Amino acid sequence: MTQPKKKTTIILFSGDYDKAMAAYIIANGAAAYDHDVTIFHTFWGLNALRKEAPVPVQKGFLEKMFAKMMPRGADRMGLSRMNFAGIGPKLIKKVIKKHNAMPLPQLIEMAKEQGIKLVACQMTVDLLGLKPEELIDGIEFAGVAAYLADASEGNVNLFI
Amino acid sequence: MTQPKKKTTIILFSGDYDKAMAAYIIANGAAAYDHDVTIFHTFWGLNALRKEAPVPVQKGFLEKMFAKMMPRGADRMGLSRMNFAGIGPKLIKKVIKKHNAMPLPQLIEMAKEQGIKLVACQMTVDLLGLKPEELIDGIEFAGVAAYLADASEGNVNLFI
Amino acid sequence: MTQPKKKTTIILFSGDYDKAMAAYIIANGAAAYDHDVTIFHTFWGLNALRKEAPVPVQKGFLEKMFAKMMPRGADRMGLSRMNFAGIGPKLIKKVIKKHNAMPLPQLIEMAKEQGIKLVACQMTVDLLGLKPEELIDGIEFAGVAAYLADASEGNVNLFI
Repeated sequence: MTQPKKKTTIILFSGDYDKAMAAYIIANGAAAYDHDVTIFHTFWGLNALRKEAPVPVQKGFLEKMFAKMMPRGADRMGLSRMNFAGIGPKLIKKVIKKHNAMPLPQLIEMAKEQGIKLVACQMTVDLLGLKPEELIDGIEFAGVAAYLADASEGNVNLFI
Repeated sequence: MTQPKKKTTIILFSGDYDKAMAAYIIANGAAAYDHDVTIFHTFWGLNALRKEAPVPVQKGFLEKMFAKMMPRGADRMGLSRMNFAGIGPKLIKKVIKKHNAMPLPQLIEMAKEQGIKLVACQMTVDLLGLKPEELIDGIEFAGVAAYLADASEGNVNLFI
Repeated sequence: MTQPKKKTTIILFSGDYDKAMAAYIIANGAAAYDHDVTIFHTFWGLNALRKEAPVPVQKGFLEKMFAKMMPRGADRMGLSRMNFAGIGPKLIKKVIKKHNAMPLPQLIEMAKEQGIKLVACQMTVDLLGLKPEELIDGIEFAGVAAYLADASEGNVNLFI
């Protein structure tokens, strides 16, 4: 009898570049160690899944406001501290390059290549007025029931 | 032999409306799937348990200051980002209503109805100078030992 | 046959005094209940491990900037909210003293005495330009693989 695969399930709630980096580094590590890995993006964590280029969609006023105020894509996210009006992320990206570490967009690419399940929380996609075509390809849409099904069968469960 | 119930144990540390929403949505979902669920409120997460109306209690100077600066109840909490001096929460509540989602006070009501155990961390209640009569009814007071007893028997353990 | 020890593994990402307090209180509680406990410090959480006194080391320009802007040691960390330019931490430390609770530096001491494994994330130590000699003694340096080895064998896994 083969042992069931270990599971790592991460909720990415935060829209901060550094926190998203931590989430994706853990996720990629767990996938490398053969865990079944899911990242469930909710609230501001959805920004990591937005396409960089603006996508023409019909939206109401509130939804337009949210869309405008939220960063489009991983590369535009700010830091949880020492953001300094956008200088912080530039510095972090410099040291990432210097130390041959991976910037967030590449970590997301790698996650997809490793078969990590990237999920967008349907409820918050609706609340923030995002349209599926504004998010990157290859992701799933699901809710708390799907999250619990994954999380309750593994023990590395994080809320980031 | 019946299987033991699954357990979901959430520490709500944050005093942000959106993070508390996430905590209560996961908790209510887990209870619906028949998990034993506990939300352990500590530090700023205690604000979600405060009564909306001011309660006349005797306090020292420091305790009065904390009480004054912290929001009274779930409905007055701010957002973790895009708070904009209180406009953000109003916008979120609008889209919640528009999409027939549940605002935080209702999520807390539902949690109580589902038998979710709501705990206030005794140590931080003391530190922040809160009195039991300032918190909503039907909650328990406990410490880290009680938290660990719950958390170490389940695997959906989150710090929010 | 003896039962394997329970495991509690905490990632301390945050550089906030209150969040670090929560991490160390849970960790010390878990150690008292005989769990194997690890705190894995990454990003801003590394500040809790910095020595208070400046350590003369050779650094590049970016690394000097980071080092300058980050607090040296647990006692200098700010609050996640109500920080008020450093007054918040003073108030918290006052109420901690008043209620005979433990301030963060003492909680860290206690963690070491209880044999809690304190780990500094090697990758973020490098990114932030910290040198091993700037961090307190008795800690280990490791990466995501070591974290996963610990976390995947226990069920109290928190990201703080």
